[in-house]
Amino acid sequence: MGKAHSRALRELRHLDVPLRPELVSISGRNTETIEQARSLWGWAHALTDWREQVADERIGLFVNAGPNALHAEPMNAAARAGKHVLCEKPLGLTAHDSYELWQEAERAGIRHLCGFNYRFVPAVRLTRELLEAGELGEVVHFRARYLQSWGWEADPTLWRFAPGEAGSGALGDLGTHMIDLARYLVGEIATASAFVRTVVPGREVDDHFVAAIEFENGMLGTLEASRLARGRKNSNVFEVNGSQGSVVFDLERLNELEIADTESFRRILVTEPDHPFMRYWWPPGHILGWGETVVHELGHLLEAIAGEHGVAPHGATFEDGYRCAEVAEAIVRSAESGRREQVTYQS
Amino acid sequence: MGKAHSRALRELRHLDVPLRPELVSISGRNTETIEQARSLWGWAHALTDWREQVADERIGLFVNAGPNALHAEPMNAAARAGKHVLCEKPLGLTAHDSYELWQEAERAGIRHLCGFNYRFVPAVRLTRELLEAGELGEVVHFRARYLQSWGWEADPTLWRFAPGEAGSGALGDLGTHMIDLARYLVGEIATASAFVRTVVPGREVDDHFVAAIEFENGMLGTLEASRLARGRKNSNVFEVNGSQGSVVFDLERLNELEIADTESFRRILVTEPDHPFMRYWWPPGHILGWGETVVHELGHLLEAIAGEHGVAPHGATFEDGYRCAEVAEAIVRSAESGRREQVTYQS
Amino acid sequence: MGKAHSRALRELRHLDVPLRPELVSISGRNTETIEQARSLWGWAHALTDWREQVADERIGLFVNAGPNALHAEPMNAAARAGKHVLCEKPLGLTAHDSYELWQEAERAGIRHLCGFNYRFVPAVRLTRELLEAGELGEVVHFRARYLQSWGWEADPTLWRFAPGEAGSGALGDLGTHMIDLARYLVGEIATASAFVRTVVPGREVDDHFVAAIEFENGMLGTLEASRLARGRKNSNVFEVNGSQGSVVFDLERLNELEIADTESFRRILVTEPDHPFMRYWWPPGHILGWGETVVHELGHLLEAIAGEHGVAPHGATFEDGYRCAEVAEAIVRSAESGRREQVTYQS
Amino acid sequence: MGKAHSRALRELRHLDVPLRPELVSISGRNTETIEQARSLWGWAHALTDWREQVADERIGLFVNAGPNALHAEPMNAAARAGKHVLCEKPLGLTAHDSYELWQEAERAGIRHLCGFNYRFVPAVRLTRELLEAGELGEVVHFRARYLQSWGWEADPTLWRFAPGEAGSGALGDLGTHMIDLARYLVGEIATASAFVRTVVPGREVDDHFVAAIEFENGMLGTLEASRLARGRKNSNVFEVNGSQGSVVFDLERLNELEIADTESFRRILVTEPDHPFMRYWWPPGHILGWGETVVHELGHLLEAIAGEHGVAPHGATFEDGYRCAEVAEAIVRSAESGRREQVTYQS
Repeated sequence: MGKAHSRALRELRHLDVPLRPELVSISGRNTETIEQARSLWGWAHALTDWREQVADERIGLFVNAGPNALHAEPMNAAARAGKHVLCEKPLGLTAHDSYELWQEAERAGIRHLCGFNYRFVPAVRLTRELLEAGELGEVVHFRARYLQSWGWEADPTLWRFAPGEAGSGALGDLGTHMIDLARYLVGEIATASAFVRTVVPGREVDDHFVAAIEFENGMLGTLEASRLARGRKNSNVFEVNGSQGSVVFDLERLNELEIADTESFRRILVTEPDHPFMRYWWPPGHILGWGETVVHELGHLLEAIAGEHGVAPHGATFEDGYRCAEVAEAIVRSAESGRREQVTYQS
Repeated sequence: MGKAHSRALRELRHLDVPLRPELVSISGRNTETIEQARSLWGWAHALTDWREQVADERIGLFVNAGPNALHAEPMNAAARAGKHVLCEKPLGLTAHDSYELWQEAERAGIRHLCGFNYRFVPAVRLTRELLEAGELGEVVHFRARYLQSWGWEADPTLWRFAPGEAGSGALGDLGTHMIDLARYLVGEIATASAFVRTVVPGREVDDHFVAAIEFENGMLGTLEASRLARGRKNSNVFEVNGSQGSVVFDLERLNELEIADTESFRRILVTEPDHPFMRYWWPPGHILGWGETVVHELGHLLEAIAGEHGVAPHGATFEDGYRCAEVAEAIVRSAESGRREQVTYQS
Repeated sequence: MGKAHSRALRELRHLDVPLRPELVSISGRNTETIEQARSLWGWAHALTDWREQVADERIGLFVNAGPNALHAEPMNAAARAGKHVLCEKPLGLTAHDSYELWQEAERAGIRHLCGFNYRFVPAVRLTRELLEAGELGEVVHFRARYLQSWGWEADPTLWRFAPGEAGSGALGDLGTHMIDLARYLVGEIATASAFVRTVVPGREVDDHFVAAIEFENGMLGTLEASRLARGRKNSNVFEVNGSQGSVVFDLERLNELEIADTESFRRILVTEPDHPFMRYWWPPGHILGWGETVVHELGHLLEAIAGEHGVAPHGATFEDGYRCAEVAEAIVRSAESGRREQVTYQS
Repeated sequence: MGKAHSRALRELRHLDVPLRPELVSISGRNTETIEQARSLWGWAHALTDWREQVADERIGLFVNAGPNALHAEPMNAAARAGKHVLCEKPLGLTAHDSYELWQEAERAGIRHLCGFNYRFVPAVRLTRELLEAGELGEVVHFRARYLQSWGWEADPTLWRFAPGEAGSGALGDLGTHMIDLARYLVGEIATASAFVRTVVPGREVDDHFVAAIEFENGMLGTLEASRLARGRKNSNVFEVNGSQGSVVFDLERLNELEIADTESFRRILVTEPDHPFMRYWWPPGHILGWGETVVHELGHLLEAIAGEHGVAPHGATFEDGYRCAEVAEAIVRSAESGRREQVTYQS
């Protein structure tokens, strides 16, 4: 993600956004590695202590793309220092941590984003626009599954498998993306009935979960994530069924959206000039990559910082990061209790 | 289904199966309608009382394609009269009814099939063969959803919406197909956490359900069925992920199977001479229709009756019909209790 | 094709068509083989001399599914004897033969069909209806390719590879289907510029051809057929582009039609009650197989024989068979001359 | 293309390539427009006379993304001034012009690329690697069609419709991409039989062409391009059939490659670490956009300039641009003569 954020910030210097970011400094644990990253990715300075960045008055935006266990402390410090922040997902290691991060950011009065970059896929934004315009009618079903397969042969020493650093496995890594999209597109999740599994012997975080969910409007959905689905590379697929139509999205074909009316599905290539974000890019039919989603996300944050729309209306804000964490914890609680669990929020 | 069974029985007179069925009689409530069906579908006699058929010594196989509420009495009578039987799904209106039907059939010592015809789709049978041969390794996930959309504008007087005749809605009609395939391909289901919904105002049976399930081997899955998914006509899709590979099936493209090894998905047109059931039909690339699944199903029953393989090894037997009903009832119990429910069986 | 025609004729006894065919006799060269076919496929008598069939007054319809070299003599004799006829494609070994067959049939005043059964795929018929209704505007492009791969490992003694029996290879077998669809959907072909190739050493008929064609309305198209396209089983794909929309069809998914308006493609499952031929069959989403196309074709002929619509308005009549042969010969002439060749017709 | 080249050059400053480009100056006809472009796209200087750039000693690489009529003069001048060059396709307005451009570049001893960026799509490069490794066996067929639909409603004053500026229409714009890919993947084209059409009244360049082609190895192919194919946005699709396998590519899904062995097609997401160009980018399953093809193309040129591999082994060099132009002219000659035309080359 460090590479993707660096590239996006450079790119935003050359797009029609209200602020042109300067790449002041990048920090990391290893002196040599971080200097290489600095040099390759175009940062002015390389540091091994993020505290120097928090103290640097030139810095107005602090982006945290570190392991999950290194989200809370730097984010809180940066917010208190008055810097706008973007933190990768999941926000904190627990819902409570996430809540504290959100509260700290609110108290500081800064702009805050949690890195749910799939809100910034043009086809996802188009889905949101269709829903807001009522073109799909009332939503009655939502189903999403995020499948990868790298978990079978993965290096067991990866930080993603260490409970202390990652917090959780497929649920935190992939599941939170789906939870966020469910919330962004349909609304708040009220209850969850779920199972969570660790399949690979010796692994300490989950490989797989399934959940049946109920939204606050009473409608139902399913969520599933796995790192063990052979043949699937990055298959984040959701379907929304409304009373007047449906949409299907697949991250592996992120430039496409299948849209049904009451009869049949139409395949839309989301690259027309009037499609979300396409004013930045190419003529129709010239597709975007995954990297552009991060450009759009940071662009949205720059607009928010510039005061164009007060807050960041499409989020995902730290509040979204917190709410997502509560849903994830309800899933874990349900897996443990064998009961349908309410999602509850601190206030 | 009456039309489909009639056609299949006629067709089987001209395929390489050990018995050639004679179409003795067809029965129905309305004299005129049943005579039309007799004449068009090629039956020798038309009757308005199925008891005459039970008493008819010429009849060796009794097929019941009537509404769900008319399954139990004729089936039990036919079995007691020593006739082999095929009963459309779901078997009984309750799991208990289904159990009684199974027991009666066992006591009578006849061959019995419950009409889960999707076991007889060549691509489904090929999936089973791949699993039995270990080509997908150990199954770790199963997901299925059966989506239709006709429920939005449907005639409210249809028997399918009458609780007394249909028993349940999407769960009994579509969900049971998925439960049966899950059992046929993966194994017994141990527990279910589910929600069931009636969305359309005034409707008395369910339109939609979602379930997170656990198999006896500890692995997880999801099931969902709806009659309200806009753009979906008959979209019965399942995916099995194993430790060595995966398969994806879609009933709307029933001649295809997507098969993954540890790397990527391959699209197989299941029409090669060595593919299941294809010895009956055409050269490679000449696809089959839905109607042929009923031919294969009845052909399997004829082979069982002829003693070719003792029982009907691919079922679905009345035991399968009963076990499916227990899973469906666990889903309903879970929806009501808000708890993960065990599937239990009478013995 | 003998099996497919037999099945279709039996099936038509139980569909809503104006005549119920009786299966009088089947003939073939080998006594034993033809008796087996008779017994399995439901014919009353088996013969080794088609002349007996021509002389049989009970027979009103003569279907010829034999090798191409055995089309002309029996067809002419049957027509002269006043029998209605269906002859598999290609009609004659040459355009001239085909012309004579057509003329003989016309003189005899009987109903005649050339076996271009893809006119009777519901999605193809729907394409025709869309074109007739002007929904695609004016046709500007047509492209079709029919790809199979069995030619690589095929038995060299097959009659399909013997020039004397087959006439030609991929062109006659697959190319004629595409030529017929081009004519049926778009209109007459005026000129062709083509190459024809035999790739496999020792083979005496063509494996592959490509043609750039011009329709009489001045618009252009491409045709290609091959038996050597690895991975393709029966991939007969065409696309029609009009000023207001497009359609794409693939025989391997014969129940689907992709239809574009001026913006995007929609996937239609051609199984709705108001879709062509679906009144014979199942509820929406329950797909048909290749075999049903032959049922529809013979049903159309039965309607024509019964006088329902005078001639067979959807053909393909022997005139269509003849006209197709002229296009095929223009393709061969162009391959030999290196020039764009006019398609000309005898009169 | 100016935007795409600017972005690619900036991006290459941060990728692992042997030279880091500086963006010295950009030129254009309109003072105001070019200054906006300079400012937004990150160039140091904006000019209205390209001759100043030719005279600027700081400049080592001259990229020409102007209209086709403005390719020859600046390219020749830049080459003579010893600058390396990249010129958008088609190279010259005629094959002869293109030949002169190539010769001038050769005499100057500089590195030269013609902008066929689709050689730099990872899936296209993978196709080339599979062919070179013999995994598809001997190529027997090649078919390509490049379909767009914007021609129906396009602004008639666009330079693309002016014969003097564009040279030709769909043939020069889209057809040349296909010709280049045919040459890159299969080999030289020997002859062409073609039609070229202007369909829209009042238009002075072609909207559509079709060609049947023969490669020097005797194998056949088809090419087609149109700006009038409703529903198609940027549908550049090719298929290569070899004796041992096939591949299918679609530019609208440029991250995918369908690869057949002798049996069936496999869908490959070309985003694995060992896939071409992926070392620059993201983890598996995170797709690239069209813009990245230009990054890869310019990266290849930088490597060539740095002497990494002497010339630019993957081209497309000006020789490729010239050879492509000869094929395009053979297509036009064939359309006019009605004969199969040889492709001949100046020497």
